[in-house]
This record gives sequence, C-alpha cells and structure tokens, in this order.
Amino acid sequence: MTPESRAEDGYDLWLRYRAVEAEAQARYRPLAAAIVSEGRSDTIDAATQELRRGLGGMLGQAPATAARVTGDGAIVIGTPAGSPIVARLRLPLSGLGHEGFLIRSVTIDGRRATVIAANSDIGLLYGAFRYLQRIQLRQPVDAIDLSDKPKLDVRVLNHWDNLDRYVERGYSGESLWDWQKLPRFRDPRYTDYARANASIGINGVVLTNVNANADILRPEWLEKVKILAETFRPYGIRVYLTARFSAPIELGGMKTADPLDPAVRAWWKARTDEIYRVIPDFGGFLVKANSEGQPGPGDYKRTHADGANMLADAVKPHGGIVMWRAFVYEPHNPEDRHKQAYTDFVPLDGKFADNVLVQVKNGAIDFQPREPFHPIFGAMPRTPLMMEFQITKEYLGFATHLAYLGTMWEEVLESDTGRPRAGRTVADVLETRVRPGALTGMAGVANIGTDRNWSGSQFDQANWYAFGRMAWNPDSKAQAIAADWTRMTWGAGPAIDDAVTGMMMRSREAVVDYMTPLGLGHLMATGHHYGPAPWVSDLARPEWNPVYYHKADQGGIGFDRTKTGSDAVSQYAPSVAARYGSVDRVPEELLLWFHHVPWSHRMASGRTLWDELIVRYDRGVGEVAAMQARWDTLRDKVDPGRWAEVRDFLAIQHDEATWWRDASIAYFQSVSKLPLPAGHAAPAHDLDWYKAIDSKYAPGNGK
Amino acid sequence: MTPESRAEDGYDLWLRYRAVEAEAQARYRPLAAAIVSEGRSDTIDAATQELRRGLGGMLGQAPATAARVTGDGAIVIGTPAGSPIVARLRLPLSGLGHEGFLIRSVTIDGRRATVIAANSDIGLLYGAFRYLQRIQLRQPVDAIDLSDKPKLDVRVLNHWDNLDRYVERGYSGESLWDWQKLPRFRDPRYTDYARANASIGINGVVLTNVNANADILRPEWLEKVKILAETFRPYGIRVYLTARFSAPIELGGMKTADPLDPAVRAWWKARTDEIYRVIPDFGGFLVKANSEGQPGPGDYKRTHADGANMLADAVKPHGGIVMWRAFVYEPHNPEDRHKQAYTDFVPLDGKFADNVLVQVKNGAIDFQPREPFHPIFGAMPRTPLMMEFQITKEYLGFATHLAYLGTMWEEVLESDTGRPRAGRTVADVLETRVRPGALTGMAGVANIGTDRNWSGSQFDQANWYAFGRMAWNPDSKAQAIAADWTRMTWGAGPAIDDAVTGMMMRSREAVVDYMTPLGLGHLMATGHHYGPAPWVSDLARPEWNPVYYHKADQGGIGFDRTKTGSDAVSQYAPSVAARYGSVDRVPEELLLWFHHVPWSHRMASGRTLWDELIVRYDRGVGEVAAMQARWDTLRDKVDPGRWAEVRDFLAIQHDEATWWRDASIAYFQSVSKLPLPAGHAAPAHDLDWYKAIDSKYAPGNGK
Repeated sequence: MTPESRAEDGYDLWLRYRAVEAEAQARYRPLAAAIVSEGRSDTIDAATQELRRGLGGMLGQAPATAARVTGDGAIVIGTPAGSPIVARLRLPLSGLGHEGFLIRSVTIDGRRATVIAANSDIGLLYGAFRYLQRIQLRQPVDAIDLSDKPKLDVRVLNHWDNLDRYVERGYSGESLWDWQKLPRFRDPRYTDYARANASIGINGVVLTNVNANADILRPEWLEKVKILAETFRPYGIRVYLTARFSAPIELGGMKTADPLDPAVRAWWKARTDEIYRVIPDFGGFLVKANSEGQPGPGDYKRTHADGANMLADAVKPHGGIVMWRAFVYEPHNPEDRHKQAYTDFVPLDGKFADNVLVQVKNGAIDFQPREPFHPIFGAMPRTPLMMEFQITKEYLGFATHLAYLGTMWEEVLESDTGRPRAGRTVADVLETRVRPGALTGMAGVANIGTDRNWSGSQFDQANWYAFGRMAWNPDSKAQAIAADWTRMTWGAGPAIDDAVTGMMMRSREAVVDYMTPLGLGHLMATGHHYGPAPWVSDLARPEWNPVYYHKADQGGIGFDRTKTGSDAVSQYAPSVAARYGSVDRVPEELLLWFHHVPWSHRMASGRTLWDELIVRYDRGVGEVAAMQARWDTLRDKVDPGRWAEVRDFLAIQHDEATWWRDASIAYFQSVSKLPLPAGHAAPAHDLDWYKAIDSKYAPGNGK
Repeated sequence: MTPESRAEDGYDLWLRYRAVEAEAQARYRPLAAAIVSEGRSDTIDAATQELRRGLGGMLGQAPATAARVTGDGAIVIGTPAGSPIVARLRLPLSGLGHEGFLIRSVTIDGRRATVIAANSDIGLLYGAFRYLQRIQLRQPVDAIDLSDKPKLDVRVLNHWDNLDRYVERGYSGESLWDWQKLPRFRDPRYTDYARANASIGINGVVLTNVNANADILRPEWLEKVKILAETFRPYGIRVYLTARFSAPIELGGMKTADPLDPAVRAWWKARTDEIYRVIPDFGGFLVKANSEGQPGPGDYKRTHADGANMLADAVKPHGGIVMWRAFVYEPHNPEDRHKQAYTDFVPLDGKFADNVLVQVKNGAIDFQPREPFHPIFGAMPRTPLMMEFQITKEYLGFATHLAYLGTMWEEVLESDTGRPRAGRTVADVLETRVRPGALTGMAGVANIGTDRNWSGSQFDQANWYAFGRMAWNPDSKAQAIAADWTRMTWGAGPAIDDAVTGMMMRSREAVVDYMTPLGLGHLMATGHHYGPAPWVSDLARPEWNPVYYHKADQGGIGFDRTKTGSDAVSQYAPSVAARYGSVDRVPEELLLWFHHVPWSHRMASGRTLWDELIVRYDRGVGEVAAMQARWDTLRDKVDPGRWAEVRDFLAIQHDEATWWRDASIAYFQSVSKLPLPAGHAAPAHDLDWYKAIDSKYAPGNGK
C-alpha cells in the first residue's frame, strides 16, 4: 500500500494543501517564487516550513528559501527588528500589537514581492497561515494589503484529560498526551496539533481536566509537561494546568488548603516557583472550585476571590494568570441552579486580582443545545470575564451528530446584555478591557483526541476551527467561518460550498429541534448524557433530574423563571428581563426556558404548544434526512474515504434523532395525555421500551 | 500537507509495498503483467485487490485484470471448481486441504504464467499474500513451485477488549472495535486489520476480554458483532466471543448457572441459536472460568469439563467450538500456583467434548519473560490442547521495550515434553490430532489497538507477525521470521537486515537479564506490572506477591519446586523432571525457577550466584545500550519518522532497564547482605527511593 493509494482520513484538518487547479497554480506561482526570511528563531522556522509545505502542496513546488530578493515573486517574512529588508519598508505595524500581522504587496529593489510583517515572530507565523489560507480559498494574493490582530488576549483550549489518558466528555479517542511515554518520546502529532492551533490563533492549552488531579504538579509530571511546552512554544502556545485546590493537603501533607492560611499560600508559591523553573513561560492555572464535588475556598468559608487571588499571587511574579470558573452550583442549595453562579460571583465584582480571569460558560446551566446567554455577562463590570464554550458535543450528539456550533456561539456573542445600556453584546463584554492592561479571553473545551480525524468526526473539526476563529475575533460570522472551513477542508467548487456550508448552517437548529425544542434543556440520560431521558426523576440532587428542567405536568410544561417562579430573569438587565420575563415577548426558542405554559398555549404558528412541540421534533428529524440527501449529492465530488464516514455518521444521527423524537413524544404524551396531531404516527415503541434503553458503555462519562 | 510529505508512521505494517529497486522492477514486471481470475467471491476480490495494490506499489504499476491469458506474464488465480483454466492444469492440490495453496510457474496456451491455486477461495488469498511476500523479500518468482498449508486449524487472536473500548493489558490505544458507532459505521480500519491477519494466516478473532461481560451476548450487541463478522469474512476470519459463565443469571434472570441444570443448558442453547441466526459462521466461545474471580462450573461443584461440554453442546449443531482456558488458580489453595492447572485439568483428560480445545498458556505461571513449558503439554493425550501465547507484553516492558517474542515462543515450542517419549516437543503436541478429526490450534493475546502503528511500537508489530507465522507452522524458526519481517517492514538492504534482525534476536534475552535473570519471575509491580517491585509482600493472596516467587532470604534465593519443596517438577515427564529437579542439570536460565540455592552457589562461569546475578543484570542493560548503538547506524537507512520513534523508545527502554537492575540489586542486596562485586557501582538510589515509585497511571491494568 503506497500512501498515494490510501483513502483520505481527515488527519490534515483544514491545512489540507491539496494541489489547486492548474489555472490557479499558473496565477499563484509567479507570486510565490521564493521565501526570503531574515532573522532566525524556531517560530520563524515554523512559519517558513509551513509556507514551503503549503505552497509545495498547493502549487506543486515548494518555493526556495533565499537570503535576499533577487527576482520577482519573493515572499519576504520578518519583523523590523529581525529583518533589515522589512525595516526599510517602514510598514505601519504600530497598531498590530504583539500578535498581529500585515501582508502587503510591495516593491523591493524594483522587484515585486509580498511581505509578511509583524512586531513579533508569532505574528509572522499567524501571517504565514493567513497567506496560505488565501490560496486555499482561491483569493487573490497580488495587490494584497491586509492586516489583522486578535481581539482577545487569552485564546485557550481546555482539555478535560485525565492522567491515564481518559478524556471526560471525550468522543475522539484517548488524550493526545501520551504521559506514559513522556518525557522521552515526543509524539510528532504534538507538532501537528500545535500547527493546527496556531493556524487559527489559539495561544494556550490547558492540558488537564478541570476535575483536577494534584499529581500533575509533582516534579516527575512537570518534566513531562515541559516537553509539551517546548513543542508548543514555537507555535506561540503556552501550557496551563488545572490546580486542584486541595493539593496542599494531598501533595504537601498539610492539614488545610485554606487560601488565607500563610502556610498554604507559601506552599502554592513554592510549588509555582518550581513549575516556572521547569517551564519559564508557563501560562498559569485553571480552577474549578466548589462545584460538583471539587474542593475550593468555600470549604474554609472563604470566597472564590480569596481562592483565586491566592493562586494569582503565586503566578504573578512570573507573568502567569489564573482562570477561575464561575460554573458552580452547590449541594443542598434549593435556589434555581440557573441563579447560583450569579448569586455567588456578582457580589465579588472588583475583588479579583489583576491577573485573574473569571471563566463563564455561555449559559447558566451547562452547554445545552440552546441556552440564553449567561446573566453574569455585563453584570461584573470591574472583573475580566472570559467565555467558556464547549467544543466537544457532550449535549449535542457526541461525535456522530453533525452540529456546527458556530451558529450557537454567534447567537450568544451577539446577545444584547443591556448592560450598561442597550446594544452592548456579550462579544463587547469580552472584548472590552475592564481597565487598561486588564485581560480578555475565551476558552473552548476541546474535542480533540487520538482519533485519526482528531475530533471524532470530519465535521467536528469545524467546531475546533470555528472556536479558534471566534476567539481571535468574537465578531466573526458563523456563515463566513463555515464557508472558509468548507473550502479548506473539502475542496473548492460551488457544489461543495453550497452543500457543506448549507448543511452546517442549519445543523445546530436541527439538534435543538429533535432534542430540546422551544427552550427545553437538560433532558439527556444520566451521567453520560447519551440519548433522551426526560422521565428521570430519581437522582439524589434535584437539579440532576430532567424533570427539574422541564417541569411537565398535565397542565403544561416549562420552568417558570419569572417573578412568579424562580425569578432568574431578574438577574438580567431590566430590558432583557422584561423581554425574557414576558410570555408574549420571549423568543419562542426560549419560551419553556423561562415560562411554564399550558399545553394549549397558542404559538405564533397558530398551533397549540403541544402541536408545535411535535412539529419541532419532526422538523429536527426531517432536517437530518435533508442533510443525508444533500450529502448524497457530493458522492463523486469529495474523496470516498471521508465521504463514506460522513454518510455513516449521518445515518447514526438520523437513527438517534428519531430515537430522541419518539422517546420524547412518548414521555410527554404520557404527561400531557393529549392526542398526537391528526395523521401523526405514534412513536415506534411504548414509553417503557425507551426507558429500558441502558447505554452504560457510552463514552465520555465523568470518572 | 500532501500525503507524500508525511512521515511514515508504521500504519502499513509488513504490507508496506514500497517500490522495489529499478533492477528488481525490471525483473519482476514481465512476470506480473496481468491478473487473470475466474470465479467471483468477496475473497477472490480481496486476493485480486491485494495483488493489484501490492504489485502496483512495488512494481510501480498495478497489473490489469483480465478474463483470459493473452500473453506472457499472467498471474492466474483460481480454484479448480471456480476456474476452468486452473482445472485444466490438473495441479496436485489434494493434500492442501481447505486452507493450503500452490504457486507454480506454468505454461498456458503457450504463454508463460504463474498460477496461484487452491481448493478454496481462502487458500487463494493466502497464496496471493505469499506471492507478494516473495517480491517483498526479493525472492525469484520465475520457475516457482511452492505449496503450503497450515499445521494448525484454529489460529486466533484473543483481544482482551472491554465494551467501553478499554483494553486490559493494552499498550496501543483503545480497542479497535468502535462499539458506540457500530453497527452503522464500518471503520475502514477493520478491513486493514483483516488484511494483516489474513496475510499471516490468522483465521479467528476473539473480540472480547476473557474477563468477560455478559452484555456482549445481548441482541443489540450481536448486531454490532455481525458487522465485524461480515467485514472479516472475506479474509477467512471468524469471530468468537468470550462467554461469561454466569450469563444465565445476569441476562436470563435465572437463579443458577449450574452447567448440569437443564434450564441453564436450554438457556445457552437458545442464546447460541440466536447468535448463529445473526452470524451464521460464528466461531464459538472462549471461556475463562473459576480463575481470578471469574464465575465457572466450580461454583456449583462441577468440573471444567462439565462447563465446557455444556457450551460445546450449544455450538455443536452450528459447527462452533469452545476454547476453555486452563489458566486457573484458586483463592485459599495453598498448593504452589505452578501446580494448580495441572492438578485441575489432567484428571479430566478424555472428558471434554469433541469440539472443545483446552487453551494452555506457554508456562504454568503467567507469561513471564522466561518460564519452562507448561507441564500440561504432553500430559493430556486424549484432549486437544491449544497454545496460548501473549503477544502484548504485559511482563516484558509494555510497548516501549524492544523484545522480539519469536525466540521465546520458539524455545517453548521446541521444548521436549518427554511424553510419551523423548523428542516429542510442545510443537508436536500441538500439531498432532488426538484422534482423527480432532482440533488443533494456537491463540495469541493481541497487542493491537487504535495507535497509528497498531501495536504501540514499530517493533511490537513483529510479535503480531511472528505469532501468525508460528500459528501457521509451529516449527517455524524465529530467526527466519525476524529476517522476513525486517525486510518487509523496514526495507531491503544488508545493513538493515543485519542490524534489525540482530537486535531482535538478542532482545528477549536482554529483558530476561534486566528483569528476571536465572529463572526468577513475577517480580513486577502490583496490578499494572509496570516496573520492578521484588519487595512486595503484603498482598492478600500469597501468590500475588513477588516474594512468593523469589523466596530470597539471607541464605539464598529461588523457589524450591523439587521433591524437597513444592514438587512441581513431578508434573513433568520423568526425564524432564530429572533434569529440572537436579540443581546440577537444570539449565541455569531456569535455576531459580526450580531451586532455592545459596547466594554462594557456584555457577558455570565460576562466579557465585550472587555475583552472576549482578552480571546478568548488567548484561541486560548493556544489551539495550548495544541496541541503541546499532539503531544509530540506521539513521539514514530507514525513514526518519519511524527511526526517531524507535530511537526514543530505546531510550525509554534503557532508562527502565537501568531502573529494573538498580531497584532489583538494591532490594536483593538488602536481603543477601552481600557486597557488590569489586568495582561495581552501587545503585543510583537507595531501596526506599525505588519502593516509593508509584506508577498508578500506568496503562493496561485490569478493571
């Protein structure tokens, strides 16, 4: 078997670099005849190698590298500090900061050239990827003049990876980090991972699960982390670790982890100093505290700020940061889970150290197919807040359901917080520094593992890609990102553009429809969250039960979060609260999130709520069937290996969408006692049949 | 990134099919100008495709397929029943059985051709692989006349794979079986797995762990198994499952699993019938019973024969078989663990049903780096016995240690059982049918997982390969197998041949030396078996503790299994027992396996046992250093991707060999109180340092 004869498998991601059409090669080749780089660093080497790899693949011949410009068509890459050629061009780089870049068509000594310039080497690497992207997209690279820089500082993946390589909420194999073979064996895949991240501007990686294990802080483990840090460094990526709050007890043999205890503080300081001795550019810590069984400052009646600031003090001398999660809900707290994070955190506004970012999930519950934006956004004006999106699809069908998350994230980022005034979106909150020098950021819970296609499916690569693009620029449009990804990943051609991008853009709404329409949420099976289980009501904590979220009874369905209920709406700005709190003004997509309404409630369609619910379930399943039909049209237009995988995964999605619909209808009908709309077939099985499904080997459950 | 620019990663295994030298291409091409096949089946298609793939890769051009011979150089492939051309040749196929094949240079209608003929389609596939192998090895294919057939009937891999994809004793990623996505998604890798197995004659796969889970027998799981069976079928591979003995209780809701209970027997019969309805060529069951916590007939005071025969009755009408493991040792049984399997099974000789094979590990303990052959071989003349080798290196350094197991298996297979007379080897026992029509077989515990290189390392592929070759022919020579694998996997060239094969041939003895020299065994750390822990003495069952095996004290070391001790030697034939039982005649490699001897015992070298022990440890570490030096000489002779991986793994092996040596010396010196030989450096750390090492995240532990 030669490599040439092997089917494509998706390993290349969006850096696919297949040969462009002959006509395009003829157009691009004269513009990419040589690469001229001055200055030398691992990052510049990476940029040069990427250009050679990408241009070699797409244009059929890798440009030579040269020390000076000797003819037309050179690509000159450098910083003013490192490259006299670039310095002489006196380019307008001052506004580009540390990570921005400029690409411009210029004349050097009478020769036509393209310059990729930046204030730092990492900017050059980002510029090199952008240059290649233009050719991947068949955009012109003559008469080019573009510059770009990221709108957020910290753009990180959160890997929920355990030290035994098990990945919590992982649907794509094991953890990439082969701890058992580190530090001796540097898997070449680490470099391809770093390349992919750098290509979309990701500049940090939290290696370990937020449900943290103190052992990662042991010296022998730090030696392993060091190798990953070294491998990622040329690509502008810092490593971060999760800090288990009780580590002073577990590793230090102390009796307490009280963040105000001087000995505890000294222990963290010493341990942090040791980390920085091994990894001088260590990024810092991510912490999940006092949530779902994790230890935290609350164990000592201290606040989240007390906990975060202790760690912030430890990393501060080294330039590190702390990302402190706002995802908290407490056992025995009867308050609507929706409200707890806000209740805990908003009073702490202004109390966090300078180098702390509070990391807030997009919604107040937990990465559901649809949630309203989290009320904390806009409500902590003196605290740097970073977004936490979940790229891995814990609640949207694991690896097999085609669900492009760009549209979901765009919906959240465009949401108007109403704070301090109308029109200020979540994206604005993320992008605006709360004071000069304050941090900004976005985190994505990674969907990356050892599967050959990285993300468990071909289309889940798009979510990794879209996350990077949105972290770079939260104002990005999901449609444009999908269109770019489609071309880079599947090849150019209008049939591919239309079909692939079209499927993506409607896919998330399809999942909402067949899983949790009209503002329902958290109806998934217990633990692994695979498949429907709206009937579950017997778990120890009320808020673990689906019935807690839908509150269906014979009278109606939905969670009353208005003043007559939990009043969670009051945590939003008044203008937002007025809209969400009104059964007439709330968007129908969020109706049952905020209101308990009778089954007979009249919807905009003119249907009753009950009938509309059925229509939505059907619509979701129908949308999957439509995706299958659309994908069939690409059978001869994309490579057969990836085509067949997607075909099979869509078949799984159709099976499971049908399962979701039918199980949900069977259950809700048992509650509503209402007939199905005329002509609608009954579910294929009775409710007990669906209840009996036990998916105990489903992947990704917490351990 | 184009595929061409990507580093080799080992995915191709020994079916690498890279272009041969131009001179060899010129020689082979005229002999492989076309493929002529008559008759049509999935297996013939697989053979034809493999020939096209292999010849296309090696000769630069895939031969055309044709319906008849129209010129010189055709490869004619067919059975007399399916191909009139082949039938007319009247080839001597009668002795080749169902799986054998013949390859011969012939003249057809005046044209020179090569015929690959067999009595069945699977023989044709085996013949096609053998033909390709000859070119991979640069052997002539003109004037060819060879035939071959397997010496054993059942040649199976045992996958110790759980339903959540965790692999017990797995060091190469997750289970290949992606149960979550089955039955809809047929991973293309299943086909490559089947190709690799067929290329070495493996004809069966037990999909599930011997520590069994009854759920695999549920209807929804059988639908998944069915897809694997369908995928493997064209490659002559049957699927088998492990049967959990208590399944009638767990799945059937019964109160008992007593094998003599008619209701239990009826339950198994019905369940088995159901399996065959889904998978008509289902191979049968593998059972681990009454061992290490598994349920079994002993729970009802029934014998292993009672249990095996119940299942054998169930599969018999369908042509299925039962493989019943002899690996048993019981809690609270004070008898030397070495003796228990023999004690339990030999009295049952002749009591097993016709379609039962008793599966016996190569040694009486558990896949140690060196064990004497199992005394059951030769001692059950009326019972079909199959060998169980462990391909995965649970006790020989996991995936990172280079340890070619061919030499170990050869040593066992060549061992003289002395039963019923001198000269009858273990291989003879395996190959000889105990009555006409009785079964023969060999099982290998697989080392295959989702790692890109399949086996966790490049060199562990050789153990998969060697297993297949030895299952096909237990009289094969380890050296010849290593030489073939080297050329097929790494490329032709005397430097490669010498270095790679040379490293392989000495590698297992190196592991013996640095882990368990002179007949020591079972000194690995608890549970995961990663690294040395000869000091462990506090586990619940005596035979779980390393001190049980080495019995070192100030007076000496070793397990007295002679008449003055456990008398395990008496389970061997008298001639063998006399040799093993004599401290003077026992091979030094097995000295401490059978004898407790004083530290001052004089060895053949003239050294004391204590000094010899140190020498052996040093020799093992030195051998690894020599392998590293040898590998360095291949830096420019093999591809850089695989070369670097092996280099790094050898570095890990050297680290760990040193750890083994030093920890072992530190411990044994604490017992012997003897000085190290003059000039020998003390271990780098004190004993407590080694004892404190906690490898709790090491892979592959049982769950």
